[in-house]
Amino acid sequence: MNTETVSQVISQEDLLKHWQGHRALTRRVIQAFPEKDFFEFSVAGMRPFAKLTDELLAIAAPALRGIVKRDVQPFTEGSTQGFTTKAQYLEQWDKDTKDIDALWQQLSVEDFSESFNLFGQYEFPIIQNILYFIDNEIHHRGQGYVYLRALNIAPPFFWER
Amino acid sequence: MNTETVSQVISQEDLLKHWQGHRALTRRVIQAFPEKDFFEFSVAGMRPFAKLTDELLAIAAPALRGIVKRDVQPFTEGSTQGFTTKAQYLEQWDKDTKDIDALWQQLSVEDFSESFNLFGQYEFPIIQNILYFIDNEIHHRGQGYVYLRALNIAPPFFWER
Repeated sequence: MNTETVSQVISQEDLLKHWQGHRALTRRVIQAFPEKDFFEFSVAGMRPFAKLTDELLAIAAPALRGIVKRDVQPFTEGSTQGFTTKAQYLEQWDKDTKDIDALWQQLSVEDFSESFNLFGQYEFPIIQNILYFIDNEIHHRGQGYVYLRALNIAPPFFWER
Repeated sequence: MNTETVSQVISQEDLLKHWQGHRALTRRVIQAFPEKDFFEFSVAGMRPFAKLTDELLAIAAPALRGIVKRDVQPFTEGSTQGFTTKAQYLEQWDKDTKDIDALWQQLSVEDFSESFNLFGQYEFPIIQNILYFIDNEIHHRGQGYVYLRALNIAPPFFWER
Protein backbone atom coordinates (compact mmCIF):
# COMPACT_ATOMS: atom_id res chain seq x y z
CA MET A 1 0.00 0.00 0.00
CA ASN A 2 1.57 3.30 -0.96
CA THR A 3 0.75 6.64 0.60
CA GLU A 4 -1.44 7.75 -2.31
CA THR A 5 -4.01 5.07 -1.59
CA VAL A 6 -3.87 5.19 2.18
CA SER A 7 -7.13 6.15 3.86
CA GLN A 8 -7.03 9.21 6.07
CA VAL A 9 -9.51 10.09 8.81
CA ILE A 10 -9.18 13.56 7.30
CA SER A 11 -6.84 14.54 4.51
CA GLN A 12 -4.50 17.50 4.82
CA GLU A 13 -6.35 19.24 2.00
CA ASP A 14 -9.76 18.72 3.62
CA LEU A 15 -8.52 20.03 6.98
CA LEU A 16 -7.39 23.25 5.27
CA LYS A 17 -10.77 23.52 3.53
CA HIS A 18 -12.48 22.99 6.89
CA TRP A 19 -10.39 25.71 8.56
CA GLN A 20 -10.79 28.21 5.73
CA GLY A 21 -14.52 27.48 5.66
CA HIS A 22 -14.71 28.53 9.30
CA ARG A 23 -12.57 31.59 8.60
CA ALA A 24 -14.95 32.55 5.77
CA LEU A 25 -17.87 32.35 8.21
CA THR A 26 -16.05 34.48 10.78
CA ARG A 27 -15.38 37.03 8.05
CA ARG A 28 -19.15 37.19 7.44
CA VAL A 29 -19.70 37.77 11.16
CA ILE A 30 -17.22 40.70 11.11
CA GLN A 31 -19.09 42.11 8.11
CA ALA A 32 -22.45 41.74 9.88
CA PHE A 33 -21.46 44.13 12.68
CA PRO A 34 -22.26 47.81 12.27
CA GLU A 35 -18.94 49.71 12.16
CA LYS A 36 -19.31 51.27 15.61
CA ASP A 37 -20.62 48.13 17.31
CA PHE A 38 -17.74 46.03 15.99
CA PHE A 39 -15.42 48.14 18.14
CA GLU A 40 -17.66 49.01 21.07
CA PHE A 41 -20.56 46.62 21.62
CA SER A 42 -20.41 43.65 23.93
CA VAL A 43 -22.51 41.67 26.36
CA ALA A 44 -21.74 41.07 30.05
CA GLY A 45 -18.52 43.09 30.00
CA MET A 46 -16.81 40.74 27.53
CA ARG A 47 -14.50 41.94 24.78
CA PRO A 48 -16.10 43.62 21.73
CA PHE A 49 -15.83 41.60 18.53
CA ALA A 50 -12.92 43.74 17.27
CA LYS A 51 -10.90 42.65 20.31
CA LEU A 52 -11.83 39.00 19.71
CA THR A 53 -10.76 39.45 16.10
CA ASP A 54 -7.41 40.85 17.30
CA GLU A 55 -6.90 37.52 19.04
CA LEU A 56 -8.01 35.42 16.07
CA LEU A 57 -5.68 37.30 13.70
CA ALA A 58 -2.84 37.04 16.21
CA ILE A 59 -3.21 33.26 16.18
CA ALA A 60 -4.10 31.90 12.74
CA ALA A 61 -1.47 33.03 10.21
CA PRO A 62 1.31 33.95 12.69
CA ALA A 63 0.92 30.61 14.51
CA LEU A 64 0.94 28.61 11.28
CA ARG A 65 4.01 30.56 10.12
CA GLY A 66 5.74 29.61 13.39
CA ILE A 67 4.78 25.98 12.91
CA VAL A 68 5.90 25.76 9.29
CA LYS A 69 9.22 27.47 9.97
CA ARG A 70 9.57 25.80 13.38
CA ASP A 71 10.22 29.30 14.69
CA VAL A 72 9.01 29.86 18.25
CA GLN A 73 7.73 33.43 18.63
CA PRO A 74 5.82 34.88 21.61
CA PHE A 75 2.10 35.61 21.24
CA THR A 76 1.39 39.21 20.28
CA GLU A 77 -1.69 41.04 19.05
CA GLY A 78 0.56 43.69 17.47
CA SER A 79 -0.46 43.20 13.82
CA THR A 80 -3.87 44.85 14.33
CA GLN A 81 -2.67 47.60 16.68
CA GLY A 82 -3.94 50.94 15.50
CA PHE A 83 -6.68 49.43 13.31
CA THR A 84 -9.71 51.70 13.51
CA THR A 85 -11.98 50.42 10.70
CA LYS A 86 -13.63 47.12 9.82
CA ALA A 87 -12.12 47.48 6.35
CA GLN A 88 -8.62 47.27 7.83
CA TYR A 89 -9.55 44.07 9.68
CA LEU A 90 -11.11 42.53 6.57
CA GLU A 91 -8.07 43.39 4.48
CA GLN A 92 -5.77 41.75 7.04
CA TRP A 93 -8.14 38.77 7.19
CA ASP A 94 -7.92 38.26 3.41
CA LYS A 95 -4.16 38.66 3.39
CA ASP A 96 -3.90 35.99 6.10
CA THR A 97 -6.27 33.69 4.18
CA LYS A 98 -3.79 33.68 1.29
CA ASP A 99 -0.80 33.28 3.63
CA ILE A 100 -2.46 30.30 5.33
CA ASP A 101 -3.11 28.64 1.96
CA ALA A 102 0.54 29.12 0.95
CA LEU A 103 2.01 28.04 4.30
CA TRP A 104 -0.20 24.93 4.37
CA GLN A 105 1.48 23.64 1.21
CA GLN A 106 4.78 23.55 3.11
CA LEU A 107 3.42 21.04 5.63
CA SER A 108 3.58 17.29 5.10
CA VAL A 109 1.28 14.71 6.65
CA GLU A 110 4.16 13.66 8.90
CA ASP A 111 4.42 17.16 10.41
CA PHE A 112 1.00 16.97 12.07
CA SER A 113 2.11 14.47 14.70
CA GLU A 114 5.31 16.37 15.49
CA SER A 115 5.48 18.47 18.61
CA PHE A 116 5.83 22.26 18.46
CA ASN A 117 6.06 24.77 21.30
CA LEU A 118 3.50 27.28 20.06
CA PHE A 119 4.19 30.85 21.22
CA GLY A 120 6.79 29.31 23.52
CA GLN A 121 3.91 28.21 25.74
CA TYR A 122 1.94 25.34 24.23
CA GLU A 123 4.07 22.28 23.55
CA PHE A 124 1.70 19.95 21.69
CA PRO A 125 1.52 17.91 18.50
CA ILE A 126 0.93 20.30 15.58
CA ILE A 127 -2.48 18.76 14.82
CA GLN A 128 -3.61 19.70 18.33
CA ASN A 129 -2.34 23.25 17.89
CA ILE A 130 -4.20 23.63 14.60
CA LEU A 131 -7.44 22.17 15.97
CA TYR A 132 -7.10 24.63 18.83
CA PHE A 133 -6.95 27.58 16.39
CA ILE A 134 -10.16 26.39 14.74
CA ASP A 135 -11.97 25.62 18.01
CA ASN A 136 -10.97 28.91 19.58
CA GLU A 137 -12.31 30.77 16.56
CA ILE A 138 -15.64 28.88 16.66
CA HIS A 139 -15.88 29.57 20.40
CA HIS A 140 -15.36 33.32 20.11
CA ARG A 141 -17.51 33.55 17.00
CA GLY A 142 -20.29 31.90 19.05
CA GLN A 143 -19.99 34.88 21.40
CA GLY A 144 -20.21 37.17 18.38
CA TYR A 145 -23.51 35.50 17.41
CA VAL A 146 -24.93 36.49 20.81
CA TYR A 147 -23.69 40.08 20.33
CA LEU A 148 -25.39 40.23 16.92
CA ARG A 149 -28.65 38.81 18.32
CA ALA A 150 -28.48 41.37 21.15
CA LEU A 151 -28.10 44.04 18.45
CA ASN A 152 -31.16 42.57 16.72
CA ILE A 153 -29.07 41.53 13.71
CA ALA A 154 -29.52 38.05 12.20
CA PRO A 155 -26.11 36.32 12.11
CA PRO A 156 -25.09 34.30 9.04
CA PHE A 157 -26.17 30.66 8.97
CA PHE A 158 -23.71 28.51 10.92
CA TRP A 159 -23.42 26.03 8.05
CA GLU A 160 -22.53 28.74 5.48
CA ARG A 161 -18.83 28.46 4.80
CA MET B 1 4.21 0.55 3.89
CA ASN B 2 1.48 -1.06 5.93
CA THR B 3 -1.37 0.77 7.62
CA GLU B 4 0.19 0.60 11.08
CA THR B 5 3.04 2.86 10.06
CA VAL B 6 1.09 5.24 7.86
CA SER B 7 1.05 8.84 9.05
CA GLN B 8 -2.34 10.34 9.69
CA VAL B 9 -3.17 14.04 9.87
CA ILE B 10 -5.22 12.93 12.87
CA SER B 11 -5.68 9.37 14.03
CA GLN B 12 -9.11 7.91 14.67
CA GLU B 13 -8.25 7.54 18.35
CA ASP B 14 -7.10 11.16 18.67
CA LEU B 15 -10.23 12.47 16.97
CA LEU B 16 -12.35 10.61 19.54
CA LYS B 17 -10.22 12.04 22.35
CA HIS B 18 -10.65 15.51 20.84
CA TRP B 19 -14.44 15.12 20.66
CA GLN B 20 -14.79 13.68 24.14
CA GLY B 21 -12.52 16.44 25.49
CA HIS B 22 -14.97 19.00 24.12
CA ARG B 23 -17.89 17.03 25.53
CA ALA B 24 -16.20 17.01 28.94
CA LEU B 25 -15.90 20.80 28.78
CA THR B 26 -19.56 21.20 27.79
CA ARG B 27 -20.48 19.00 30.74
CA ARG B 28 -18.61 21.46 33.00
CA VAL B 29 -20.58 24.33 31.47
CA ILE B 30 -23.87 22.54 32.23
CA GLN B 31 -22.66 22.04 35.80
CA ALA B 32 -21.70 25.71 36.12
CA PHE B 33 -25.30 26.88 35.58
CA PRO B 34 -27.52 27.37 38.61
CA GLU B 35 -30.40 24.85 38.32
CA LYS B 36 -33.05 27.46 37.50
CA ASP B 37 -30.91 29.44 35.07
CA PHE B 38 -30.00 26.32 33.10
CA PHE B 39 -33.66 26.06 32.11
CA GLU B 40 -34.69 29.70 32.03
CA PHE B 41 -31.85 32.16 31.55
CA SER B 42 -30.78 33.44 28.17
CA VAL B 43 -29.51 36.56 26.43
CA ALA B 44 -31.15 38.37 23.53
CA GLY B 45 -34.11 35.98 23.34
CA MET B 46 -31.92 32.99 22.43
CA ARG B 47 -32.56 29.46 23.72
CA PRO B 48 -31.64 28.75 27.37
CA PHE B 49 -28.71 26.37 27.80
CA ALA B 50 -31.04 23.42 28.55
CA LYS B 51 -32.58 23.86 25.08
CA LEU B 52 -29.13 24.04 23.50
CA THR B 53 -28.22 20.87 25.40
CA ASP B 54 -31.36 19.18 24.02
CA GLU B 55 -29.91 19.81 20.58
CA LEU B 56 -26.41 18.63 21.48
CA LEU B 57 -27.75 15.40 22.99
CA ALA B 58 -30.04 14.87 19.99
CA ILE B 59 -27.01 14.99 17.72
CA ALA B 60 -23.93 13.36 19.27
CA ALA B 61 -24.77 9.75 20.23
CA PRO B 62 -27.90 9.32 18.05
CA ALA B 63 -26.07 10.67 15.00
CA LEU B 64 -23.03 8.48 15.57
CA ARG B 65 -25.33 5.47 16.04
CA GLY B 66 -26.96 6.28 12.69
CA ILE B 67 -23.55 6.55 11.06
CA VAL B 68 -22.17 3.32 12.50
CA LYS B 69 -25.28 1.32 11.64
CA ARG B 70 -25.80 3.25 8.36
CA ASP B 71 -29.36 3.73 9.60
CA VAL B 72 -30.93 7.01 8.45
CA GLN B 73 -33.23 8.36 11.16
CA PRO B 74 -34.89 11.79 11.28
CA PHE B 75 -33.56 14.39 13.74
CA THR B 76 -35.52 14.43 17.00
CA GLU B 77 -34.93 16.03 20.38
CA GLY B 78 -37.19 13.42 21.97
CA SER B 79 -34.63 11.78 24.27
CA THR B 80 -34.57 14.73 26.69
CA GLN B 81 -38.28 15.46 26.53
CA GLY B 82 -39.68 15.78 30.03
CA PHE B 83 -36.27 16.35 31.62
CA THR B 84 -36.69 18.85 34.44
CA THR B 85 -33.38 18.68 36.32
CA LYS B 86 -29.74 19.23 35.47
CA ALA B 87 -29.04 15.82 37.02
CA GLN B 88 -31.15 14.14 34.34
CA TYR B 89 -29.20 15.93 31.63
CA LEU B 90 -25.85 15.02 33.17
CA GLU B 91 -26.88 11.38 33.51
CA GLN B 92 -27.89 11.26 29.84
CA TRP B 93 -24.64 13.04 28.94
CA ASP B 94 -22.57 10.38 30.72
CA LYS B 95 -24.55 7.53 29.20
CA ASP B 96 -23.94 9.01 25.74
CA THR B 97 -20.23 9.46 26.49
CA LYS B 98 -19.97 5.69 26.99
CA ASP B 99 -22.12 4.95 23.93
CA ILE B 100 -19.93 7.21 21.77
CA ASP B 101 -16.79 5.42 22.98
CA ALA B 102 -18.30 2.03 22.14
CA LEU B 103 -19.75 3.07 18.78
CA TRP B 104 -16.44 4.67 17.75
CA GLN B 105 -14.73 1.28 17.96
CA GLN B 106 -17.04 0.04 15.23
CA LEU B 107 -15.74 2.61 12.76
CA SER B 108 -12.74 2.00 10.53
CA VAL B 109 -10.49 4.66 9.02
CA GLU B 110 -12.07 3.91 5.63
CA ASP B 111 -15.54 4.84 6.92
CA PHE B 112 -14.65 8.50 7.46
CA SER B 113 -14.52 9.30 3.75
CA GLU B 114 -17.77 7.46 2.98
CA SER B 115 -20.91 9.46 2.46
CA PHE B 116 -23.87 9.24 4.85
CA ASN B 117 -27.21 11.03 4.72
CA LEU B 118 -27.37 12.24 8.31
CA PHE B 119 -30.91 12.63 9.65
CA GLY B 120 -32.04 12.10 6.05
CA GLN B 121 -30.96 15.69 5.41
CA TYR B 122 -27.19 16.07 5.33
CA GLU B 123 -25.50 13.91 2.72
CA PHE B 124 -21.80 14.37 3.43
CA PRO B 125 -18.66 12.35 4.05
CA ILE B 126 -18.80 10.97 7.60
CA ILE B 127 -15.74 13.00 8.67
CA GLN B 128 -17.61 16.19 7.78
CA ASN B 129 -20.65 15.08 9.74
CA ILE B 130 -18.53 14.34 12.81
CA LEU B 131 -16.63 17.64 12.58
CA TYR B 132 -20.00 19.32 12.36
CA PHE B 133 -21.11 17.72 15.66
CA ILE B 134 -17.99 19.04 17.37
CA ASP B 135 -18.15 22.51 15.81
CA ASN B 136 -21.84 22.91 16.55
CA GLU B 137 -21.18 22.01 20.19
CA ILE B 138 -18.31 24.53 20.48
CA HIS B 139 -20.50 27.18 18.83
CA HIS B 140 -23.43 26.73 21.23
CA ARG B 141 -21.15 26.34 24.22
CA GLY B 142 -19.65 29.71 23.26
CA GLN B 143 -23.15 31.14 23.69
CA GLY B 144 -23.32 29.41 27.06
CA TYR B 145 -20.13 31.21 28.12
CA VAL B 146 -21.85 34.54 27.46
CA TYR B 147 -24.87 33.43 29.49
CA LEU B 148 -22.59 32.48 32.40
CA ARG B 149 -20.74 35.81 32.20
CA ALA B 150 -24.08 37.64 32.14
CA LEU B 151 -24.98 35.66 35.29
CA ASN B 152 -21.68 36.80 36.81
CA ILE B 153 -20.40 33.20 36.89
CA ALA B 154 -16.85 32.44 35.72
CA PRO B 155 -17.06 29.74 33.01
CA PRO B 156 -14.52 26.87 33.00
CA PHE B 157 -11.25 27.52 31.17
CA PHE B 158 -11.66 26.85 27.45
CA TRP B 159 -8.55 24.67 27.38
CA GLU B 160 -9.75 22.42 30.22
CA ARG B 161 -10.86 19.15 28.65
